[in-house]
Amino acid sequence: MVISVDTFFLDAEAQGTLQARIQQMITQGILSGRFRKGEKLPSSRKLAEHLGVSRITVTIAYTELLANDYLTARDRSGYYVSENAPEPPEFTALHPSQDKVDWSRALGRRFTGGATPIKPQDWSRYRYPFIYGQADPALFDHANWRQCALQALGQKDFLAMTTDYYDQDDPELIEFVARHTLPRRGILAEPSEILITMGAQNALWLTAQVLLSQRRTAVIENPCYHAQRDILTQSRCHLEPVGVDRDGLPPDALPKHADVIFTTPSHQCPTNATMPLSRRKELLRKAAEMEALIVEDDYEFEMSFLRSPLPALKSLDTDGRVIYVGSFSKSIFPGLRLGYLVGSKAFIREARALRASVLRHPPGHIQRTAAYFLSLGHYDSLIRKMGQAYAKRRTVMERACAEHGLGIVGQGVFGGSSIWMRAPDHVDTTALDARLRANKVLIEPGIPFFHGDSPPRNFYRLAYSSISAARIPDGIGILARELKNG
Amino acid sequence: MVISVDTFFLDAEAQGTLQARIQQMITQGILSGRFRKGEKLPSSRKLAEHLGVSRITVTIAYTELLANDYLTARDRSGYYVSENAPEPPEFTALHPSQDKVDWSRALGRRFTGGATPIKPQDWSRYRYPFIYGQADPALFDHANWRQCALQALGQKDFLAMTTDYYDQDDPELIEFVARHTLPRRGILAEPSEILITMGAQNALWLTAQVLLSQRRTAVIENPCYHAQRDILTQSRCHLEPVGVDRDGLPPDALPKHADVIFTTPSHQCPTNATMPLSRRKELLRKAAEMEALIVEDDYEFEMSFLRSPLPALKSLDTDGRVIYVGSFSKSIFPGLRLGYLVGSKAFIREARALRASVLRHPPGHIQRTAAYFLSLGHYDSLIRKMGQAYAKRRTVMERACAEHGLGIVGQGVFGGSSIWMRAPDHVDTTALDARLRANKVLIEPGIPFFHGDSPPRNFYRLAYSSISAARIPDGIGILARELKNG
Repeated sequence: MVISVDTFFLDAEAQGTLQARIQQMITQGILSGRFRKGEKLPSSRKLAEHLGVSRITVTIAYTELLANDYLTARDRSGYYVSENAPEPPEFTALHPSQDKVDWSRALGRRFTGGATPIKPQDWSRYRYPFIYGQADPALFDHANWRQCALQALGQKDFLAMTTDYYDQDDPELIEFVARHTLPRRGILAEPSEILITMGAQNALWLTAQVLLSQRRTAVIENPCYHAQRDILTQSRCHLEPVGVDRDGLPPDALPKHADVIFTTPSHQCPTNATMPLSRRKELLRKAAEMEALIVEDDYEFEMSFLRSPLPALKSLDTDGRVIYVGSFSKSIFPGLRLGYLVGSKAFIREARALRASVLRHPPGHIQRTAAYFLSLGHYDSLIRKMGQAYAKRRTVMERACAEHGLGIVGQGVFGGSSIWMRAPDHVDTTALDARLRANKVLIEPGIPFFHGDSPPRNFYRLAYSSISAARIPDGIGILARELKNG
Repeated sequence: MVISVDTFFLDAEAQGTLQARIQQMITQGILSGRFRKGEKLPSSRKLAEHLGVSRITVTIAYTELLANDYLTARDRSGYYVSENAPEPPEFTALHPSQDKVDWSRALGRRFTGGATPIKPQDWSRYRYPFIYGQADPALFDHANWRQCALQALGQKDFLAMTTDYYDQDDPELIEFVARHTLPRRGILAEPSEILITMGAQNALWLTAQVLLSQRRTAVIENPCYHAQRDILTQSRCHLEPVGVDRDGLPPDALPKHADVIFTTPSHQCPTNATMPLSRRKELLRKAAEMEALIVEDDYEFEMSFLRSPLPALKSLDTDGRVIYVGSFSKSIFPGLRLGYLVGSKAFIREARALRASVLRHPPGHIQRTAAYFLSLGHYDSLIRKMGQAYAKRRTVMERACAEHGLGIVGQGVFGGSSIWMRAPDHVDTTALDARLRANKVLIEPGIPFFHGDSPPRNFYRLAYSSISAARIPDGIGILARELKNG
């Protein structure tokens, strides 16, 4: 690789002759690790032209550096960073922190310190990854996704890919969601009632910003998705956690007043409970009574491989009270960052304006690729394939857990991709997780899902979305052994 | 296309026989526009299985619909929505607004009503699009972008594309930005000082959230980028607009106190002024004196086709006082939504946590594609090609403006992609714009760029980034004619 001439700057205030300053610039590039061994320098003509100096000055600097073994010359092809050039120190060492800014004062607000745990980036290296929410290369329909992406890269879709949509979305994706995706959940919506988001995370975040403030009260399920709790904590609203039972959020346990109720009726996160139809209706009735809105995170409805899913809460809503959150990130792959928000026009209008200010719109190419993948039927096939594999894995998992006497406490009647587990009371699953990692097993400790200062420490989640059925028994075996030891 | 069986729901509370309810479900699908003429229905076996009813019930319902001409049968291949089926009414008519929610009360905050104008989505249909910030198909290196995207879709990059990076970024893109992009601006930064964002818009938004609050004061340039002003207005900080001159933001005019100064030194937006080195140093000195931070939006530094750009303000900063915003959305294409933020670790840490909460991370596939496009040198070639074309267009533009006596007031000494124009005092460029659109000419009225209630109405921006040199003279000719008439 040739080092671009544009990366060379002469420090206007440096001392010394031009030639010395050029030498210094290059040695600093090498010592800082910016220029690497074997990389080619620009020709003396080009560099001279770029710096506005005479060519002979650059040539002399290069010759000096050759003598010092910073550079080597290959006959007629030019100058390269020498294999014998001094090693750059560790990158950090070279860049001493010289901040004169008092950041404790300068930061207007802090966003670090939430409940969401740092998850391992290298999960795919673990032999037994009971990890939730990552794509399984063995199941994903890579060939057809590639085909759709290729189509969306074509000349015909040039505008869809490159255009600045301002606050709008790809009309083809919106149309597909309106005509095909939402009807499966019993929902009828117009394009102006739909907003494409950067995954469900972004949909939940936008919703919290539009609906909540310091003066408002939000109900959340306990336990619940930790990122959801972080979003609400950052909104500074008053939080009312309500404990879930085997049927999800119990309407009877709602506080007297709330402005917004966040719920996951299809598969409660993380317990996997499915809310029965009667309870859905009761929840809607209660919400209407207290004039509260409901935010329905319908995640994983696609993974209903055991029975057809119940219609969404939104489909039962005749008041415009329910805001619906869907996602393609789970069912296609999480790196896609694509979800959607459905709600009344007045709400979507504000969410759209906020999204425009925050990021404008999800990339056009990604939206169009998803539109093709959906409309060509690949998505449906993928869901079926995933459902079949998950059904099998789930059976193997249940059998292995039963064999080792491990306590499943929540597994969802429709399907899903994980089971919610309870270890004996004395077990701290965070410590268990650390021991298991040393044995190539990844689990998800339960603590971050719980509200409050003294969460139960003995819950954990086991997902079967990224581990093959063949590896499940051994993984559960190691888990059972470590549980006995702990 | 076959209508998926999953889009069929029997309304549990509907009256009538099963067969009647199935018929109703299908006619409603057709009348609502969800099922379209020529689309194929699921087989009676499949639909029966899905609904949990006997096959004969479905078959009778289909036969009835056949008789009513909602469906047609093609021998042995199944049932289709008939070409003679009733036309669905307009989508909106079918979905009466029945909201019982009082949205004026339910919305916690409003985000609509900002300064940013609604720009035409159909700009590419105008013959003379002097529009700013859209990609030009005639210049973009589509073939190589496609090639890079294809590579990033490969098996080797499966994880990079699909993975949930949580709060992290594609390490390859970060490495390229650190080693190659930033050094061109004289900036040395470690990976922990860089955050990939959804374009410069997202970088500016994150920065405002982290640094500002109701108790803080921000300086903005006047005129300035309208979306920048919307972001700051939404942050609810105190705004101090400072008028720019021919050299950009004048340090002498700064207020006594400010917490954060937002500036565009490379090409002031929208006047195109370039801040001279002496003024950059003075701005840094003043900021240090008042202990303010500076946010440098270095947009369009790549478009310095007339002279090499000055090093970034950030490269002169020894205090950690400058936060740097860069973007690939302008130079590659805006639909890409890819930019970056460079700053001290303490700042980037908070911006990263906020980004994770808002959207997690920009899609992996997009990041990896950009990393390839950059590292294979295609980006540099593209910039050169764009620079050459822009240089030519600019010359044609200047000549045409001179010929018609149009007043250019700002055009940037290094290059750029637009010129800032002043019409005679009596001209309202918003009205001018409306008249020009009828003549296939698109310009950008200047009003939204200005702060305050009585902005000057006679400024406008003409960009040459999406119009061919050949069309410029005629476009300017029409503009001059309309100016005379108005």
